[in-house]
Amino acid sequence: MHLIVVGGVAAGTKAAARARRINKDLAITLFQDESDVSYTACGQPYFLSGIVEKRESLIIRRAEDFGKEEIQVRLRHRVINLNPDDCSIQVHDLTNDIVDTVHYDRLILATGARALIPSIPGNDLDGVVTLRSMAELDRFRSVLERLNPQQAVIVGGGYIALEVAESLHALGIETTLLVRNKQIFSRLDPEMSQHVETHLLFKGVRIITGDEISEIVEVDGRIAEVVTQSNMRLSAQIVVLAVGALPNVELAERGGIALGPTGAIAVNKRMETNVKWIFAAGDCVESYHRLTQQPVWVPLGDIANLQGRVAGENAAGGSAQFPGVFGTAIFKSFDINVGMTGLTEAAALKAGFNIVATVITARDKARYYPGAHNITLKLVADGKSGRLLGAQAIGSGSVDKITDIAATALLGGLSTFDLENADLAYAPPFSPVLSPIIVAAGALNKKLDKNGSST
Amino acid sequence: MHLIVVGGVAAGTKAAARARRINKDLAITLFQDESDVSYTACGQPYFLSGIVEKRESLIIRRAEDFGKEEIQVRLRHRVINLNPDDCSIQVHDLTNDIVDTVHYDRLILATGARALIPSIPGNDLDGVVTLRSMAELDRFRSVLERLNPQQAVIVGGGYIALEVAESLHALGIETTLLVRNKQIFSRLDPEMSQHVETHLLFKGVRIITGDEISEIVEVDGRIAEVVTQSNMRLSAQIVVLAVGALPNVELAERGGIALGPTGAIAVNKRMETNVKWIFAAGDCVESYHRLTQQPVWVPLGDIANLQGRVAGENAAGGSAQFPGVFGTAIFKSFDINVGMTGLTEAAALKAGFNIVATVITARDKARYYPGAHNITLKLVADGKSGRLLGAQAIGSGSVDKITDIAATALLGGLSTFDLENADLAYAPPFSPVLSPIIVAAGALNKKLDKNGSST
Repeated sequence: MHLIVVGGVAAGTKAAARARRINKDLAITLFQDESDVSYTACGQPYFLSGIVEKRESLIIRRAEDFGKEEIQVRLRHRVINLNPDDCSIQVHDLTNDIVDTVHYDRLILATGARALIPSIPGNDLDGVVTLRSMAELDRFRSVLERLNPQQAVIVGGGYIALEVAESLHALGIETTLLVRNKQIFSRLDPEMSQHVETHLLFKGVRIITGDEISEIVEVDGRIAEVVTQSNMRLSAQIVVLAVGALPNVELAERGGIALGPTGAIAVNKRMETNVKWIFAAGDCVESYHRLTQQPVWVPLGDIANLQGRVAGENAAGGSAQFPGVFGTAIFKSFDINVGMTGLTEAAALKAGFNIVATVITARDKARYYPGAHNITLKLVADGKSGRLLGAQAIGSGSVDKITDIAATALLGGLSTFDLENADLAYAPPFSPVLSPIIVAAGALNKKLDKNGSST
Repeated sequence: MHLIVVGGVAAGTKAAARARRINKDLAITLFQDESDVSYTACGQPYFLSGIVEKRESLIIRRAEDFGKEEIQVRLRHRVINLNPDDCSIQVHDLTNDIVDTVHYDRLILATGARALIPSIPGNDLDGVVTLRSMAELDRFRSVLERLNPQQAVIVGGGYIALEVAESLHALGIETTLLVRNKQIFSRLDPEMSQHVETHLLFKGVRIITGDEISEIVEVDGRIAEVVTQSNMRLSAQIVVLAVGALPNVELAERGGIALGPTGAIAVNKRMETNVKWIFAAGDCVESYHRLTQQPVWVPLGDIANLQGRVAGENAAGGSAQFPGVFGTAIFKSFDINVGMTGLTEAAALKAGFNIVATVITARDKARYYPGAHNITLKLVADGKSGRLLGAQAIGSGSVDKITDIAATALLGGLSTFDLENADLAYAPPFSPVLSPIIVAAGALNKKLDKNGSST
């Protein structure tokens, strides 16, 4: 039995390792078109700023590390065709420029995603960078060193944009965020996003919302400025394109594998595609959202790992399921942490829920204990049952804890009535006597009581 | 309608405030036998060490603050008798030495608990201290200042003992813990408790387990040494008695109120005692343990607040329930945080559960991100269904987060199969790509698979 894994950043390497643990007799080959395998994209912004000092820190396992488990890793091998009829793939060895046909018994597609590049004049200039693969990271670093930019324009307002804003600012580069939407980070409700925007402005980042990049202008082969659709001209020597990503589905499509409504590969809970013996996992697939019960595309490293584990187990003859996602995410930008799980108020309304929502601000530790920070927390719950639907938290302190309590509450289908009496860990160095989530749940319950719901 | 609240540390003040919010027409009187009201006992160790600088930081609300809400607070008023037949109490005004009879329509007992004093020679010497009330804290501080102790013996191995050990050590006092059990902190399984012990030893605290105090010896009116049952002699100029607490139930007993098997006041989920119109909340009552379904006595500040809120709401004519506890707790001692929720392996076995358990050690952040710490995590789950029964976590990092995820999982009745695919918040500054709780859940699921349980 030959298991082939296509792609080896997170989901692919996890799948291969899991398959090996489940089945000692399997032959496993992993094809990776890049020169690096098994690395963390999420850590890249911290390498740019120097918080993470060494490039190799971002590499989780080197290709040769997989030899111990008898997993053959082929770097710089691009899978260019897929023929499910005879269970074969065509592989292009980029180093030796040889194309070969290889047969599989089981196939796992973990082809990932790529940065979206706006089709605008100047998008291929030397100082235009993206962040996702190690090659892109290397180019980003090289641009910083060679061009020594004093001004940057970051196009986009998502995680990567906000994390890179911190990194570039830390390097002394005057940074402007150019965001197409009316708010940065559109996965937050506007009043929560506003707190993030205020913090970044306070830190000295310029933010332009509701405008779009239309051209990158060069002078003598070097970037001089960014022109927006409303004809603003922003001086910059480096332009970071962080406007989103696209799932790499071309190989799957060539093999007749169905995509879902999000444009990513459709899979069931066993991470099986519609084509026999072919699994898919990671940034190239869509997930099932456990609240909206709709497909959703969530290209995040932790989800890729969880899905890779399930795909690897099943491809090796085991039986595992990936039950779906709640859209949990967190990022840090400058001094604030921003966490979210489940649905925002806007998303819940769009999904047809009748909701109640509240925003509170509370300390994350006992008031008198040194280092207590405020957390602003928004909870969204079903307007009748009080079932928690989502949480958004912003602050300098333990936002990650509040987010994970809420994410676990979503997993348990808990209501705000349950949460109001949650038995959480209290001692002054860790929490106020009543956790912010208990306080927020209590505030929502008052609204629910008025709605006439039963406790 | 006259609501009387007896006791005003945590549960009592919370109950009074909640009752006022529910019912504007109620007359509310709170009798407190101490000179302080509404303070945090949990913060006291940090005032001893100087981490919390001002005594008044520990006071949440002063007596006069309650006037705004028209809650009459009577300090130094001890309620000495209770007669439910005519709905009256006898109150001793300690300042003016007057005894008066007062009628109530609703009564909330929040009489708290007191430190247990071992009946041994020397237990009343000047340098013998306890920690619970503000008066005890004041005495503790005064002893430290007047006697300038160089050596301390702390009798006990619970939260207070371990927190005070850190505080005294920070003051340069050579500190010995004398613990009757074979391990410190017996609410942890032995192998977990051992990590705490090792850390304290490493920090320079002497620990004697399996031995008991038998005498405190004075020389010229000052403490000279502690003698143990096995005849060890420990030099000390201060002795901290932290061997546990007793619920203050004498007043309740005088009123014919039933106690439960733990010796604390028995209440239902509405925080009603067996006597009409009389509620009770806080350290004087027992709680329902949601896993063992048995009464348990959990004298902790957060539980007191939750219970006080429910008692206050119901006494004021509302309708609220306190569903019980999972035994969640956390403390910090020196550089480690120790969290627990649900049942230990020992407690689960004792309660008749068939269990699986695992201990893992994992980073609490991405390996490459600065400031990542190891967490040692023990999970206990039902051996058949995989339902989580308990968690114990120890480490320098985000033990509070792991504990609260586990506590919320208990609240949701989640299994380790649910937890293995939990959608938790991942970014390098906050978590490794798979949270330690996901890793531990995965390890338990392998054991469960071998047991033949269904996923």
